[in-house]
Amino acid sequence: MNEFSLIDTYFKNPAIKRNDVVFGIGDDAACVQVPIGKQLLVSTDTLVADVHFLQTWDAYDIAFKAVMVNVSDIAAMGGEPCWLSLALTLPTLDQTWLARFSQGLFVALQQYNITLIGGDTTRGPLSMTLTIHGLVEQGKAVRRNGARPGDVIMVSGELGAAALAVSLLHGSTVPQQDNALLLDKLKHPHPRIDLAALLSSYASAAIDISDGLSADLNHICRQSQVSALLNLAAIPVHPLVSKYKHADAIHFALSGGDDYEVCFTLPAAQQEIFMQHLSLQGLHCYPIGTIAAGEGLWISADDGSMMPLTPCGYNHFQESKDE
Amino acid sequence: MNEFSLIDTYFKNPAIKRNDVVFGIGDDAACVQVPIGKQLLVSTDTLVADVHFLQTWDAYDIAFKAVMVNVSDIAAMGGEPCWLSLALTLPTLDQTWLARFSQGLFVALQQYNITLIGGDTTRGPLSMTLTIHGLVEQGKAVRRNGARPGDVIMVSGELGAAALAVSLLHGSTVPQQDNALLLDKLKHPHPRIDLAALLSSYASAAIDISDGLSADLNHICRQSQVSALLNLAAIPVHPLVSKYKHADAIHFALSGGDDYEVCFTLPAAQQEIFMQHLSLQGLHCYPIGTIAAGEGLWISADDGSMMPLTPCGYNHFQESKDE
Repeated sequence: MNEFSLIDTYFKNPAIKRNDVVFGIGDDAACVQVPIGKQLLVSTDTLVADVHFLQTWDAYDIAFKAVMVNVSDIAAMGGEPCWLSLALTLPTLDQTWLARFSQGLFVALQQYNITLIGGDTTRGPLSMTLTIHGLVEQGKAVRRNGARPGDVIMVSGELGAAALAVSLLHGSTVPQQDNALLLDKLKHPHPRIDLAALLSSYASAAIDISDGLSADLNHICRQSQVSALLNLAAIPVHPLVSKYKHADAIHFALSGGDDYEVCFTLPAAQQEIFMQHLSLQGLHCYPIGTIAAGEGLWISADDGSMMPLTPCGYNHFQESKDE
Repeated sequence: MNEFSLIDTYFKNPAIKRNDVVFGIGDDAACVQVPIGKQLLVSTDTLVADVHFLQTWDAYDIAFKAVMVNVSDIAAMGGEPCWLSLALTLPTLDQTWLARFSQGLFVALQQYNITLIGGDTTRGPLSMTLTIHGLVEQGKAVRRNGARPGDVIMVSGELGAAALAVSLLHGSTVPQQDNALLLDKLKHPHPRIDLAALLSSYASAAIDISDGLSADLNHICRQSQVSALLNLAAIPVHPLVSKYKHADAIHFALSGGDDYEVCFTLPAAQQEIFMQHLSLQGLHCYPIGTIAAGEGLWISADDGSMMPLTPCGYNHFQESKDE
């Protein structure tokens, strides 16, 4: 088997061929059609073995997570994911591994009607780079720089479970059932495409929570030139985090990465109608604070006073958990 | 310095901001505008240290070559390169290296008016994945599957010099000046964007020569379900290859990769007008054979008879030079 038969065998899945794909794998480039009235979103994520996933993981989970991490970026922009390019670097050509990888890949792509349009396969240390392409209504992409003083800060779900799972990877001390639930949160994130259209209609700024709430919210604050006042008691902590890390549950929720929920801001006047639309769709989001003038992150202390919060998340070039 | 200041310092170059970039680096995704009447081309290439380049190379050359390899794919499709995503995996954060890399990157991008719209930086073994986005007139992309019996096979330039350079990397035996010329062919390829519009107007099929003429032409033949009859004497061999590898110069030209010329086919009736347009632009291409029914590659022997030619090029998963 060579590079070309590998692609034929594992990556040409004609089941998911969108109508807007003029042609996909097999030429020097793929060709797609962007509809009139839409703009193109492009996002790239690299996942390196033993940094973003463990070599020992089932290849199905590696592929599945890689897709979801990319889809999450399009969700946070208020877009619809459409086309994926996959560059896969493999140390060896292990057909059992590739078959599982391909399964996880196409299951994930099928969930969001995404076509794999191309990529590259090379030999080297295990890693992959995915470039996802999405569509958004003209002028309706949600950026990080649109938060304004008075906006409500929202988060789309309970936080901290994926970080707790990471902390348990090297020897779990929780019962099997909870451990399985936590690993599922880490390996099979659910990007919030269900929120994308509402974000595009109402949000003033958004970011997906990949590095940790405080680090990611800090990007919104810096790019919007505002500060964030967080209500400690309102931050939704995943129940398993509260259960097993009671003392520092809030730390997991504020600085744990890999949850792939969305943090976003809403003009206060839009909050009620947003919440109505949300509940019509059977969804729920959590107001966790407000945007103010100034800079930095602040969090309410027990006595009601505000304390500065140091943004804290994953940084690839420091091997530590701060920015 | 962390991932974010690294991006600010080395990769936010506002000098090359195309008007069709709605916003670039700094959000979960970049946003671009595809004009009405155009289709989007997407191509991805990964370059791994010591597979596609040597770790010891000047980082300027690594970045420069990485861009050109990607631009070449858009050229072969008859498109215009526009936007690039760069995923860079680095073992350490070496600022001298990054400064040189950034220089080479932006010099290359500037040559073709390409905007860097995003990417990712991660820690790991040195490699990079580039996804280039180009535009082509609706329905005018040149594919590999359009060659028809009777078409003329063309190649855009002299072949074999980059492969000769590779063979010299581990201890050159040629004079300094020629060695420098050959390394320049390897490190600074000139993708044939100058031919893209003509290819889009006239070519029935095209591919860029990255793996070697015979291997790449074989893709056209297989996808078009035709055979290729090559005229041995007409294949343009780079003069330095003839000089230093007289005995097997044709082998270098037929199976040497990394030249980034274009191999394409033209309906015979279009050859004259194509050549006229070409010479008006001060360019030259070489007719090297014809497309016929059947399958496989054939090459003329000294006595005028045709001999089968085994397609031969780089294959990442065999460590040998055959397909």
